[in-house]
Amino acid sequence: MENVILYGSILVALLAFAFAFWLYLWVKRQPCENRKIIKATGLIRAGARTFLRKEYLVLARFAGVAAVLIFVFLPKPVWQGSPVHNIWMVAAYLCGTLFSAVAGKIGLEVATIANGRSAEAAKQGIKPSFMAGFRGGAVMGMAVVGASLLGVTIVYLLTRDPTTVLGFSFGASSLALFAKAGGGIFTKTADISADLVGKVELGIPEDDPRNPAVIADNVGDNVGDVAGMGADLFDSNVASMAAALVMAGVLGGNNVDMVFTFAALGLLASIIGVMTARIGKHGNPTRALNSSTYVTTAVYVVLTAAATYLLQFPWRIWGACIVGLAVGVIIGLTTDYFTDDSKKPVHFVAHASKSGPAFTILSGISYGLLSVLPAMIGIGVAALAAYKLCAPLATDPAETMQYALFGISMAAVGMLSIVGMIVSNDAYGPIVDNARGLAEMGELGDEVLEITDSLDSAGNTVKAVTKGFAIAAAGLTVIALLGAFMSEVNTAAAELGIAGITDFDVMNPMVFFGLLVGAAIPAVFSAMLMLGVDRNAQRMVAEIHRQFSEIVGLKEGKEGVEPEYDKCIEIATDGAIKELIPAGLMAILATFIVGFIGGVSAIGGFLCGNIVSGLLFALFMSNSGGLWDNGKKYVESGHEGGKGSDAHKAAVVGDTVGDPFKDTAGPSINTQITVVSLVASLMSTLFLTLHIF
Amino acid sequence: MENVILYGSILVALLAFAFAFWLYLWVKRQPCENRKIIKATGLIRAGARTFLRKEYLVLARFAGVAAVLIFVFLPKPVWQGSPVHNIWMVAAYLCGTLFSAVAGKIGLEVATIANGRSAEAAKQGIKPSFMAGFRGGAVMGMAVVGASLLGVTIVYLLTRDPTTVLGFSFGASSLALFAKAGGGIFTKTADISADLVGKVELGIPEDDPRNPAVIADNVGDNVGDVAGMGADLFDSNVASMAAALVMAGVLGGNNVDMVFTFAALGLLASIIGVMTARIGKHGNPTRALNSSTYVTTAVYVVLTAAATYLLQFPWRIWGACIVGLAVGVIIGLTTDYFTDDSKKPVHFVAHASKSGPAFTILSGISYGLLSVLPAMIGIGVAALAAYKLCAPLATDPAETMQYALFGISMAAVGMLSIVGMIVSNDAYGPIVDNARGLAEMGELGDEVLEITDSLDSAGNTVKAVTKGFAIAAAGLTVIALLGAFMSEVNTAAAELGIAGITDFDVMNPMVFFGLLVGAAIPAVFSAMLMLGVDRNAQRMVAEIHRQFSEIVGLKEGKEGVEPEYDKCIEIATDGAIKELIPAGLMAILATFIVGFIGGVSAIGGFLCGNIVSGLLFALFMSNSGGLWDNGKKYVESGHEGGKGSDAHKAAVVGDTVGDPFKDTAGPSINTQITVVSLVASLMSTLFLTLHIF
Repeated sequence: MENVILYGSILVALLAFAFAFWLYLWVKRQPCENRKIIKATGLIRAGARTFLRKEYLVLARFAGVAAVLIFVFLPKPVWQGSPVHNIWMVAAYLCGTLFSAVAGKIGLEVATIANGRSAEAAKQGIKPSFMAGFRGGAVMGMAVVGASLLGVTIVYLLTRDPTTVLGFSFGASSLALFAKAGGGIFTKTADISADLVGKVELGIPEDDPRNPAVIADNVGDNVGDVAGMGADLFDSNVASMAAALVMAGVLGGNNVDMVFTFAALGLLASIIGVMTARIGKHGNPTRALNSSTYVTTAVYVVLTAAATYLLQFPWRIWGACIVGLAVGVIIGLTTDYFTDDSKKPVHFVAHASKSGPAFTILSGISYGLLSVLPAMIGIGVAALAAYKLCAPLATDPAETMQYALFGISMAAVGMLSIVGMIVSNDAYGPIVDNARGLAEMGELGDEVLEITDSLDSAGNTVKAVTKGFAIAAAGLTVIALLGAFMSEVNTAAAELGIAGITDFDVMNPMVFFGLLVGAAIPAVFSAMLMLGVDRNAQRMVAEIHRQFSEIVGLKEGKEGVEPEYDKCIEIATDGAIKELIPAGLMAILATFIVGFIGGVSAIGGFLCGNIVSGLLFALFMSNSGGLWDNGKKYVESGHEGGKGSDAHKAAVVGDTVGDPFKDTAGPSINTQITVVSLVASLMSTLFLTLHIF
Repeated sequence: MENVILYGSILVALLAFAFAFWLYLWVKRQPCENRKIIKATGLIRAGARTFLRKEYLVLARFAGVAAVLIFVFLPKPVWQGSPVHNIWMVAAYLCGTLFSAVAGKIGLEVATIANGRSAEAAKQGIKPSFMAGFRGGAVMGMAVVGASLLGVTIVYLLTRDPTTVLGFSFGASSLALFAKAGGGIFTKTADISADLVGKVELGIPEDDPRNPAVIADNVGDNVGDVAGMGADLFDSNVASMAAALVMAGVLGGNNVDMVFTFAALGLLASIIGVMTARIGKHGNPTRALNSSTYVTTAVYVVLTAAATYLLQFPWRIWGACIVGLAVGVIIGLTTDYFTDDSKKPVHFVAHASKSGPAFTILSGISYGLLSVLPAMIGIGVAALAAYKLCAPLATDPAETMQYALFGISMAAVGMLSIVGMIVSNDAYGPIVDNARGLAEMGELGDEVLEITDSLDSAGNTVKAVTKGFAIAAAGLTVIALLGAFMSEVNTAAAELGIAGITDFDVMNPMVFFGLLVGAAIPAVFSAMLMLGVDRNAQRMVAEIHRQFSEIVGLKEGKEGVEPEYDKCIEIATDGAIKELIPAGLMAILATFIVGFIGGVSAIGGFLCGNIVSGLLFALFMSNSGGLWDNGKKYVESGHEGGKGSDAHKAAVVGDTVGDPFKDTAGPSINTQITVVSLVASLMSTLFLTLHIF
């Protein structure tokens, strides 16, 4: 049976790729004739490719070093264990980075084709424009989830060893860590600099082709929000499966089957969801995006119930999975409350802006801090419910904790089941954002701009929901990974014939020490990324100033005079590459240091502190950022004085602060906590045997 | 022996009061003749008294309700235990609030006398001005520490029951929670509003008597930074003793003697430190403040070593105590790095301000986030070292944890030993800040202003250090209180004949659930306080605008035309009173809800999450706030364009955001985590017997 299910999973993954290819061909068939748009999309595509090539080159070097270290040390030092096992680990690690990189590359290529198509299609109305944007994004969704399911299944099929799957997951995670951080720094460098000089200093519109940073800004949307975000969710998806497989491996029975079945059905449900996405001639794009998410969710519930019935999986675990999914949706909706421009927080921030930028900042930070509560409670309740549901499955008291942890990991799998749909919606955002810019550059007229504006605004709304969802999913996944870590430690201890661990007791000062240090890491990590954006943006602002003062006729928009777009792309690229490594490395090194000082107990506390504070900061930063963004848009739509008023200027300050919050630091923290959890699990043998105290 | 030490402690406390009285008489003897200053100090004193009276009235009502609830439920429901015990608990609780209130009142009265004296004395040079400010502040220091030692000793002498001391501590804490929050909201409402209308809109100098909010601003310094801060450190000091007494009570032997001896010696060392504070004729006030802190520290080390030798206390526990003290000083110094205007962070923020307020905010937030790392590591190391030092004292393995926790609580006592000196230095700040304002109002001339400016700036520098110190001390104290909570639970369980608890294992999902919710509370708490300031400041800005438009001749400074200062004081008072209750109540109610849902395991996690996230946010907010404040001052002193430049405007935005960070939310979190820890300990019997899951 197990083999049938594994081959079935591969089949579903291949189906997703086939579907993605069909979507790609469909997008490609759409007309794109405006010469200015063709030229601009060409520049954007070239810029994005350059960045990705440079970034992947750096990451390849990092992966090379990591591969050597993995070969020598993981899962056990090569002189202690079997080198074959270590070679498998290296292969799994490299596959993890490669699969993630390929999925990112596919998504990016299609996104930079779909953006121009979506812009041109807007001349025919909202329907074709929406479809071009959505289907372009769906290619990314299918590629990400297809590649993650394919990779995990192949690795498991070949090794039947969940620890090696952790290696694959670590590959995906380490790539995501740098892709998300690098893309996040690139996109916000360009965005902030373009706004600062263009909108604030010179008062020219957003996406004005005279602005030297405008192409870099569009490239940033693609490398940050398409490629980076795809790598992030690839990572979460793989990690949730890896954690579930570790627990399923301990329990035996048909639990491994269940993991693959439920993951494959999630992808199937997403394919169906994407296929049903439709919009009427005068339809509402937000409703179209949300309704296909709900279709996916409903299909998933039905399919998994049927599979549970047919394959005789325990209903309690199905319950845990559905609880995870439900809580994910609820958290998405509460996130929406804090960033929706028809709700109180946005109005409050917009109103506070009338008293100056300090009040924009204070009120945005305050509401951002408030917004963490429902999500934290939701994640806690989901974990608790999964535990209570699944613990009774144990026939032997020693198994209670293992079943409970398996339940939590399946809640994470459940939450992430609709990730194909989530990524599709998420990638739709930057495509239509680009389309808006291209419509402006291609001078397609106000009617078209109105359509692309409404598509763009739907993208922003949906993005807030999916971001809350992604953070919650990462939260449940890392709780499951904490269980996987303990399980890995005990397996290693049993092999070594030494005592394992039964708890991470916060009254143990070693655990508490780890907890305090672990909690500080996300704060330091996000600070380093934001300082990176800050430094990089200062370099880019200087370059824009230089161009405006040196290129004659640029400011006046003289026919034929063009800015040097590539210089800005180069600065954003080189700066991002330079700034992306230290923060990620710091998080990994801190794990090593704490582990080699305090051993596995300190690491248990470290992971726990890291998870809790990581969730806090990720939620706070993402939501504050989204709130300021929509607060600014709310003012721009004519409230509290409208465009050009003092309130607007203050709201722009809020938005600028929010940019690296929501698009650089906030979402990168997700990946940071996953990477650290995986490093800990993989290093468990070393931390168990080598530590100072 | 025990009685000798207890009576000795009372004697030292009375000595502190006598010394405070002598200092008060000395301050009072200093001349104050300038009529404008006399008038203004009169207004300030009256405003501060009004606020304190209103605040204490509200708190009396709260305390009344709490007393009834305590009588019915604590330490055990009155129908289960003995009513006598409950009556003692009520009495201890009320004494805790009363002692804290009286100490606050004493400090405030003297501070509002010393401010005018310090201003006038500046005409004679820096030396007498410094002494008036410092000795005025020292009254507060002596009153706070004397009252806390006296209260704890009397309660223990009468009951010999550490749980009842927890009741006293809870009284002190609940008063501090509201005094700190209320004072913090008052002071920042006034400060922000005065700056916003005065400096930013009208361009009149700080402390200009035409500004209707100027007296309210000075009142705010006293009620926030003197009375509020005193209540905060009273609370930490009492809580650290209470936690140590709970653990000492479990261990027996001469451990109780040790707690009182070390606390009394701390007060003695502070008295000596205050007496040695001297400044030369052209001396450096910062050096004078710091050197008396070092004197106190050295005296304390010597005195406790002598006591340990003479009274045969375990040297290992002395070691834990000294480690705590040393780490406290180190944390203070690292905090200083992030806020000192000769160091990189301040320069970076000042430079970033040239690119606009968004960069001021981003860089300040980034450095604030970075600054949490050394303190978190320091607290973790102190706890770990205390544990490792003291655990070997156990002769029976069951005692290991108890000795370890006693060691941690003594590290907290050690860190807080010099609190008399810390409070003195802290209260010096607002007094000389007031003196600066009074010198301006009394038109004492530029030479005097220069002296008061230098005293004020020393106050700000020292404040950053003492704030880091106070947060670290609260951190260690609440870790000890976590141990006290477990100990209380097990005592209650033994009495009830049911199973106690041996750990708070984060792998237990009930603990993890508590952890996630507990971690969200400081975020929500600080958000509520900041929104309170925001709302209140908006009301006050409207009032200032009204006065400037309705009072003829005010803006022009026409002779004899005065603003209605009392209206502004009234708004700040009423607003603060209205806003102070919800946030504190939320934290207490959240503890109840989590406890009655998940029982003691959930509470263990809740406290742990609350501590970790509370420390993170307290450090981040205090340090960011201090950094922005000094960044602004650095620009004002002529860097990056100096006063009036765009960089200055941006730096003012940073300072305004930082005000409620560092003076409202940040320091209130300290008290919030202590209150929650004490509530948990006191409710342990109830949480053990009544919970849903």
